Amino acid sequence: MVNGVERPLDVLNSAKGKEVLVQLKNNRQMVGTLLAFDIHINVVLDNAREIVDGESKRSMGLTFLRGDTIIFISPASMVA
Amino acid sequence: MVNGVERPLDVLNSAKGKEVLVQLKNNRQMVGTLLAFDIHINVVLDNAREIVDGESKRSMGLTFLRGDTIIFISPASMVA
Amino acid sequence: MVNGVERPLDVLNSAKGKEVLVQLKNNRQMVGTLLAFDIHINVVLDNAREIVDGESKRSMGLTFLRGDTIIFISPASMVA
Amino acid sequence: MVNGVERPLDVLNSAKGKEVLVQLKNNRQMVGTLLAFDIHINVVLDNAREIVDGESKRSMGLTFLRGDTIIFISPASMVA
Amino acid sequence: MVNGVERPLDVLNSAKGKEVLVQLKNNRQMVGTLLAFDIHINVVLDNAREIVDGESKRSMGLTFLRGDTIIFISPASMVA
Amino acid sequence: MVNGVERPLDVLNSAKGKEVLVQLKNNRQMVGTLLAFDIHINVVLDNAREIVDGESKRSMGLTFLRGDTIIFISPASMVA
Amino acid sequence: MVNGVERPLDVLNSAKGKEVLVQLKNNRQMVGTLLAFDIHINVVLDNAREIVDGESKRSMGLTFLRGDTIIFISPASMVA
Repeated sequence: MVNGVERPLDVLNSAKGKEVLVQLKNNRQMVGTLLAFDIHINVVLDNAREIVDGESKRSMGLTFLRGDTIIFISPASMVA
Repeated sequence: MVNGVERPLDVLNSAKGKEVLVQLKNNRQMVGTLLAFDIHINVVLDNAREIVDGESKRSMGLTFLRGDTIIFISPASMVA
Repeated sequence: MVNGVERPLDVLNSAKGKEVLVQLKNNRQMVGTLLAFDIHINVVLDNAREIVDGESKRSMGLTFLRGDTIIFISPASMVA
Repeated sequence: MVNGVERPLDVLNSAKGKEVLVQLKNNRQMVGTLLAFDIHINVVLDNAREIVDGESKRSMGLTFLRGDTIIFISPASMVA
Repeated sequence: MVNGVERPLDVLNSAKGKEVLVQLKNNRQMVGTLLAFDIHINVVLDNAREIVDGESKRSMGLTFLRGDTIIFISPASMVA
Repeated sequence: MVNGVERPLDVLNSAKGKEVLVQLKNNRQMVGTLLAFDIHINVVLDNAREIVDGESKRSMGLTFLRGDTIIFISPASMVA
Repeated sequence: MVNGVERPLDVLNSAKGKEVLVQLKNNRQMVGTLLAFDIHINVVLDNAREIVDGESKRSMGLTFLRGDTIIFISPASMVA
C-alpha cells in the first residue's frame, strides 16, 4: 500500500478524490473529500463536515483550509 | 460542482463575489462577500459581519483580513 | 463602492486618510486615521486611540503598528 | 550506532521503514512506520496510531504530519 | 504633523532621539529614547524603563528589543 | 574556555560528542550526547533522556529535535 | 554613551564581553557574559545563570540561546 511514497506530498497526491480527516490546531477536525493542496499544505475539501466528539457538527460544503492550522491529514475511513 | 479545482486558490477565485464564511483563530467568524485575496490569503470582504453564536454581532462593511489569522474559508450559504 | 478592488491592499490604499478600526490579537482594538501601510501590513495611524468595550481607553497620537499582530482593518465609521 | 550522523536529517533517513515515535505540540504523540520526510520535517507515517498515556487511542493508517507541529522524532522501540 | 509619512518606517525614522512607548506582547510596556531600528522592527531604546500599571517598574538603560515581540510603537508623551 | 567563539553555532560545534541539556518550550528538557545540528538548530541527540523535576522520565535513544521548539542548549554537566 | 548606534545590532556588538540580561518569553530570564550573536539574534552567553524572582536559580555555564525566544537584551548591571 505504501509503495511509491518518496516524498510526503506523494501521500496527499494519492489521496485526491478520497475522504480524508484533517486534524486542525485547537482540537478542530474536518472530514471531506480532498480536492486540492499546495506546498503550503493549503487544502480544499469538498463536502466538508466539522467533527466534534466523533459526530458531525456542521456541514460546510467546499472549504479552503489554510495549511498553517493543520496538524495531520489521514484517510478518514481509518478513523472511527 | 468541483470541476476545475486544480489548486486550492482556484476555490477562492470562483468564490469571488459570493458570500463566504471566514473562520478566524480565537473563535472569531466573519461572513461577507469575497472581493479579493492574495497568495498570503489576505482577504477582503464587503458587507462583513462578525458572527457569534450564529448571530451577527457587528457589521463592519468593507474589511481587510490578514491571512495569518484565517483557519478556513467556506461558502456561507452552507453554514447554518 | 467596491469597484476597483483587485487585490486586498487596494482596500487599504483607498482607506488612506480615513478613520479605520484595527483589530489586534489579544482583543486590543485601535481607531485612527490610516496614514501608511506596507506589504507586511505594518500600519501607521494618526490620532490613534485604544478602544476597550466601545470606549476610548488611551490616546496615543501617531502610532506604528506591526502587521504581525493585526487581525483585520475596517472603516471605523461602520463600527458602533 | 551513531556513525555517519553528519546532519540531523541523516537520522531521519536511516529511520525510514522503522517504527518511530513522533511527539507533537499540545501533548499529542504518534507511533508509526516512517515512510517519508522533507526539509520542512513534514513526515509520513504508515500504520499510525495516536498514543495517549502510553496506550493506542486511535489508528489512522497512512498519515501526513506537518513539520510545524513536531517537537521530536525518536525510534519507537526505546519508548515504553 | 503627519506630512511626509509615505511608509510605516518613516514614522520610526522621525521618532529617533525621542521618547517612545513600546507595547510588547504579554502586556509588557517599555518607555525609552528610540536610538535605532531595522526592517525587522528590532529596536534599541536608551534609558529604557519597563512600565507596569503606569509606573516605572525597572530601569534597564540601553536595551535591544526583538521586533517579533512588538505590538506598537508610539510617542511616549501622548501616553499618560 | 570561551576562546574561539565567533558565532553562536561555534558553541554547538565544539559541544559535538558531549552531553548537553536542551531546554524545549512547554517546560520539556532533554539531556543527551550532541551528534549533529543544522542552521535551523535542528538537533540530534544520542542516548536522549527526557528530564522532569531533575529526574529522567523516559529514555529515547537517538532523537531528532526540531529547532523551532528549542529555547537553549547548554553543557549538561553544569546543570544540577 | 549612545554615540555610534546606527543599527540595533551595534548595541549587541558593543556589549560583547560584558554582562547582559536576556529576557526570554515565558518569563524566563538569563544573565551572563555575551560572547556571540548572529542576525537571528541567536546568542551565546558564558557563565549563564537563570534568574527567577531576582535570584539565581541555576548556573548553566556556556549556553546557546535561540533568538526566537528572546524578548530583550540589556546590560545586566542596570537591572536590580
